[in-house]
Amino acid sequence: MCGAETTNHSTESNGFGGNLSLIDLDPGNPTVFEPYWRRMGDKCRVVIPGCELMSYKAATKPGKVCWFLLPELEDAIVRLHRLVGNAVVDDRYIVVGTGSTQLYQAALYALSTPASLKPINVVSAAPYYSCYPEETDYLCSRLYKWAGDANEYNANKSGPFIEVVNSPNNPNGSLRESVVKDCGQGKLIHDLAYYWPQFMPINRPADHDLMYFTFSKCTGHAGSRIGWALVKDREVAIKMTKYIELNSIGVSKDSQFRTAKIMELLCNEHKEFGLNSSNNFFEYGNRLMAQRWESLREAIGSSDLFSVPSFERQYCFFLGRPTKPYPAFAWLKCNEETEDCGSLLRRYNILGRNGKRFGADAKYLRLSMLSSDDVFEDFLDRLNAIRLFEE
Amino acid sequence: MCGAETTNHSTESNGFGGNLSLIDLDPGNPTVFEPYWRRMGDKCRVVIPGCELMSYKAATKPGKVCWFLLPELEDAIVRLHRLVGNAVVDDRYIVVGTGSTQLYQAALYALSTPASLKPINVVSAAPYYSCYPEETDYLCSRLYKWAGDANEYNANKSGPFIEVVNSPNNPNGSLRESVVKDCGQGKLIHDLAYYWPQFMPINRPADHDLMYFTFSKCTGHAGSRIGWALVKDREVAIKMTKYIELNSIGVSKDSQFRTAKIMELLCNEHKEFGLNSSNNFFEYGNRLMAQRWESLREAIGSSDLFSVPSFERQYCFFLGRPTKPYPAFAWLKCNEETEDCGSLLRRYNILGRNGKRFGADAKYLRLSMLSSDDVFEDFLDRLNAIRLFEE
Repeated sequence: MCGAETTNHSTESNGFGGNLSLIDLDPGNPTVFEPYWRRMGDKCRVVIPGCELMSYKAATKPGKVCWFLLPELEDAIVRLHRLVGNAVVDDRYIVVGTGSTQLYQAALYALSTPASLKPINVVSAAPYYSCYPEETDYLCSRLYKWAGDANEYNANKSGPFIEVVNSPNNPNGSLRESVVKDCGQGKLIHDLAYYWPQFMPINRPADHDLMYFTFSKCTGHAGSRIGWALVKDREVAIKMTKYIELNSIGVSKDSQFRTAKIMELLCNEHKEFGLNSSNNFFEYGNRLMAQRWESLREAIGSSDLFSVPSFERQYCFFLGRPTKPYPAFAWLKCNEETEDCGSLLRRYNILGRNGKRFGADAKYLRLSMLSSDDVFEDFLDRLNAIRLFEE
Repeated sequence: MCGAETTNHSTESNGFGGNLSLIDLDPGNPTVFEPYWRRMGDKCRVVIPGCELMSYKAATKPGKVCWFLLPELEDAIVRLHRLVGNAVVDDRYIVVGTGSTQLYQAALYALSTPASLKPINVVSAAPYYSCYPEETDYLCSRLYKWAGDANEYNANKSGPFIEVVNSPNNPNGSLRESVVKDCGQGKLIHDLAYYWPQFMPINRPADHDLMYFTFSKCTGHAGSRIGWALVKDREVAIKMTKYIELNSIGVSKDSQFRTAKIMELLCNEHKEFGLNSSNNFFEYGNRLMAQRWESLREAIGSSDLFSVPSFERQYCFFLGRPTKPYPAFAWLKCNEETEDCGSLLRRYNILGRNGKRFGADAKYLRLSMLSSDDVFEDFLDRLNAIRLFEE
């Protein structure tokens, strides 16, 4: 299973008698930011009259290729990236998608060649986002096929390829660059879903041929299913737009409108109050994620049972101060004696996503750091208890 | 090109000197209903607070398979179908999609077999909806492939197949049933986008294994990209849900919420005021479409140049009176001397969609009957002028 759904598991035998409530940290549902938006109240609500946003088309400006992109969303995307400094937006075509998931598939379609004799290989360096393989292969396309870990890929032997670079990387939080030595045969997709100041110090505006972002991770509005790609090449943008036209005749105007409104609010608040306000979303998000990571590291403490990656402090040009990466997921690793990290935690009714799903091994487990406060507190308590019981 | 986009054509030489404004009746953008929704004002506006609808998931009821379907949308869909009487909703699984376009592809995925040696054939009786072929083949799937006109399909020779039955049919407005003699090898998809009282007398609740509808045609809210399927078989509903999960991790919650609100309004208005009110959307829509068809038939008149299909009056159980079908498209046919209906109208800067795109010939042209009042009036005027000039 791929996306955000929950699986019900019964508690297996554990030291607590098996009556623990389920803590589901498998999906990355970003409910952590809900209290912020509740606090913002009426400022960020949207009102849509019944007679508005009824058309398939958007009143796009001349020269635009994405005919269903609302101009107010395009403006808001450009304004937000300029403010945050995380992506080059000049001379780019913007393509809106039903989340970054649809954009990933639009990119595969745009970068593959219908006339070629065999499917192009799609690779990403392990550990890679667990949904890439299934999203690539579920329709058994003759255009592209999943070919696994980019570290293992030999372009001399296996020919043309598309490499997906997810940076910061889901699941392990690392900053990434392409790894395949390409002999000029490779095309790149940059999935920058988590390159926002709450998760990662912004050290430069990303400047790639094809990169995409998602509203889900930017502000936590996953339910709106809005993503956007910044594309250098006009023909690639046209083909991505074509994919989305054939796949769903465009993207919800209601959600585009809401996204634009919320992005404009972020920018307006920043302009009016700057960083030194509890209303600054990214400053707030960064401090919240910092607290969570500190608490997690405390809970793991000097345990021999588990470890998580450590990160260096770097200067963030948006926040104007040094900060560490605080990834949206903890990439938990068990000690040498434990074969399967997921089984161990499942005994205590904590669900994560098995390392195998990411092209790694079962010693690893991905746990969401974006749950609600209550769930996160329960998780820390239970982690402490596991330590006491297992050590 | 498939969906709703517009192509710019320059005016070719014609009897009016080539300076006519473009009348684009190629896409089926349902702007005809906008004035109704404007008139309804605040009743049908939606308000979404910034902290709502943030999750990938929906709080679905136990036993439901579509984990991203908002319960309020499910309730509204059931209530609306019960009111209109156009589909059986008892003991059905409801799957929401990003428009019926995504549901069509979800259905192909659900009804095909990954393990089979070759793609299953997908057919529909010509003239068929012009987007089916490209929506079936653009990803060059090994699961399914477009195999053309269902009337020509021989299941004995060519084996298992999926037949898409679009009823009332786009482009020609006819009521349809499956046509392939199936020897038990066929699976059916019923695309019922236009089975609403403004377009077609409701003579019975549709009762098929897999049928879908779309908000675009039901009320004219095409920009929201909301469709829904009613599915008998649980496993098929699960596979369709899986497709939408892999394709876009669900469907915009904002649009689902708005759709639910507008459907509930339709039902509430009907409950309060009944049919004898100018506020009854379907009664209003039916009378509007009746006027448009009457005007079109007048404009074509006794012309030898063009003809459109004629339809019998039937009793509509929803409206409680006999009514004719008033399709969303006019399937215009030229006389014997004219080879290409589209070329003729393009000389007068009227754009339609060429009959060839529907598996028919160029004597036919599909023209939208759902344009705004202004555009429709211009179209009638120009049609009159063409008659005067060409005859």
